[in-house]
Amino acid sequence: MSIKTNTYHLHLETGSKRPVIFQIHPADWTAAAKRHRTLSKKLRVTVGQDNTLLDEALKTADFMINSAPPKDGLRERAPNLKWIQTTSAGVDGLMPMTWLPKDITLTNNTGAHGEKAEESCLMALLMLQAKMPQVIQQQQNRVWKGVFTTPITGKTVVVVGFGDLGQGAGRAAKKLGCNVIAVTRSGKATKLADKVVSSARIDSVLPKADFVIVTAPLTAGTRGLVNRDRINRLKPGAGFVNIGRSPIVDYVALRERLEKGELCGAVLDVFDQEPLPPDSPYWTTQNLMVLPHISCDDPRYIAHLLDFWFLNFERFLSGRKLINIVDRQLGY
Amino acid sequence: MSIKTNTYHLHLETGSKRPVIFQIHPADWTAAAKRHRTLSKKLRVTVGQDNTLLDEALKTADFMINSAPPKDGLRERAPNLKWIQTTSAGVDGLMPMTWLPKDITLTNNTGAHGEKAEESCLMALLMLQAKMPQVIQQQQNRVWKGVFTTPITGKTVVVVGFGDLGQGAGRAAKKLGCNVIAVTRSGKATKLADKVVSSARIDSVLPKADFVIVTAPLTAGTRGLVNRDRINRLKPGAGFVNIGRSPIVDYVALRERLEKGELCGAVLDVFDQEPLPPDSPYWTTQNLMVLPHISCDDPRYIAHLLDFWFLNFERFLSGRKLINIVDRQLGY
Repeated sequence: MSIKTNTYHLHLETGSKRPVIFQIHPADWTAAAKRHRTLSKKLRVTVGQDNTLLDEALKTADFMINSAPPKDGLRERAPNLKWIQTTSAGVDGLMPMTWLPKDITLTNNTGAHGEKAEESCLMALLMLQAKMPQVIQQQQNRVWKGVFTTPITGKTVVVVGFGDLGQGAGRAAKKLGCNVIAVTRSGKATKLADKVVSSARIDSVLPKADFVIVTAPLTAGTRGLVNRDRINRLKPGAGFVNIGRSPIVDYVALRERLEKGELCGAVLDVFDQEPLPPDSPYWTTQNLMVLPHISCDDPRYIAHLLDFWFLNFERFLSGRKLINIVDRQLGY
Repeated sequence: MSIKTNTYHLHLETGSKRPVIFQIHPADWTAAAKRHRTLSKKLRVTVGQDNTLLDEALKTADFMINSAPPKDGLRERAPNLKWIQTTSAGVDGLMPMTWLPKDITLTNNTGAHGEKAEESCLMALLMLQAKMPQVIQQQQNRVWKGVFTTPITGKTVVVVGFGDLGQGAGRAAKKLGCNVIAVTRSGKATKLADKVVSSARIDSVLPKADFVIVTAPLTAGTRGLVNRDRINRLKPGAGFVNIGRSPIVDYVALRERLEKGELCGAVLDVFDQEPLPPDSPYWTTQNLMVLPHISCDDPRYIAHLLDFWFLNFERFLSGRKLINIVDRQLGY
């Protein structure tokens, strides 16, 4: 292949151990390049897996799509590198960002997850309101027992974190006629929630929740935010959902309340250790539904990511500010 | 208790073997009478259980609320009886209605189930789209495996029967951005569905369904409507929901397709034999979720029924036509 002049080098790096929907294969690029024919002509592209070609690619790469970029001597190894795009929204695995040269821009994939997150939260709220964890348990035990529940309208949903995922959760709750209270870093009002409080004031709203949905990124400010004390003050019969990150929540305290039957149930999509090991107690915790980190991801994930990257590449070429630049202090 | 002149006698009859939420107890009446103080003064009320007081009550009853009214010699036993209200919406257990004197009006409780049915269908559609039957099975087997699914928008939902429950199902599907095709007796258009066909033309739409929701009452026209041949022509990967009545659907054929993994799953709320016996094969059928006949019922059921009855009683007093009069030929 002849290398064109006036082209940029984009390196796509992927890990074979990630779920297939998050892997970037040459066919994904070929399909995306067809959708963005003119822009793609300005690019020379390499695709690597498990870092086998990484060092060679870094020598000339201008841009890289990589959720686990190399942290050691990056500037020296990649003298032309200007911009790294992650395939994920969460960049907690890249914190602290002391490894990232100041003149390399990092963008994440926030915004890709909102629509699916909304549907997953809609489902989780309805399942908890209908006491599906109990109904599923009854089916396993071949027990027929009417578990009658009212419609969910009028219930209060506290959404912790109100970015892409949190706004999806908020839309879901509003669709069901619920009252939405958002907990955010700033506490700044938004019309997407009936009320917003800052995370410093979380204690004023958690005990009012019929349902809590954790959607926040993992940062210094959110780690341990929903601690044992706060779990213990959840209303009897409340439901709990986590589609954000597990270290935000004290799962040991949550399990204790679930096992005592004090909550109507929990839907957890994220865990400290993923895949969840076979001997984990979460698999069999009473009224706990274990989801394998699927709530926010669409199988068309990489196609959407590459479309988003092209949108940003067009902005890059015209000198506009990129979308989704990660704040290296805040970590999202 | 002194019997007032110009009062009517209302007899409430209930069965102790029905789920508690469908039983009428004196306290339910007392609460309802407080909500409808003026109207309740026109009534003398008796409350019976398991027919122990029934014959005595029939001698003077003008009205009766009873889902299993006596069929033998009713006119002779209840000379003043003008109106029977059932607690249920389905009156298939009262067919054929040769036992019912022509001058006794029968009203059912249709309309009480739509809101809850809508939420249950919303949940069922989302669970099937997200392949929750498979995810639940994985949890039972302690298997962590990403099951990634797209949002449901754009899928086609065929709703069989489009009364109170069916319109709830239709609203749910529209909320999710789905295309709604209703199958009704007449095939008459309604703005609540994108398309309506008559049940005679069901074969033209069932194979297009990504999801089928059966909501119809059991009548001579719906019994066996979704037969083996029609089940076999459902699209591979389709999802199936039944919140209507089980004899409408060939469950044996449905089970075969589920066990072969040809459908994404089924949510069945109704069965030929309820409670489902412990040795039933449905408990463990692959990708089948068994719900214990709860999808359309609100625990405030009797309170709502009595409010509805008072509304109709007011119409009775002013000589207007009652709401929810059952067509004795059609059976709903």
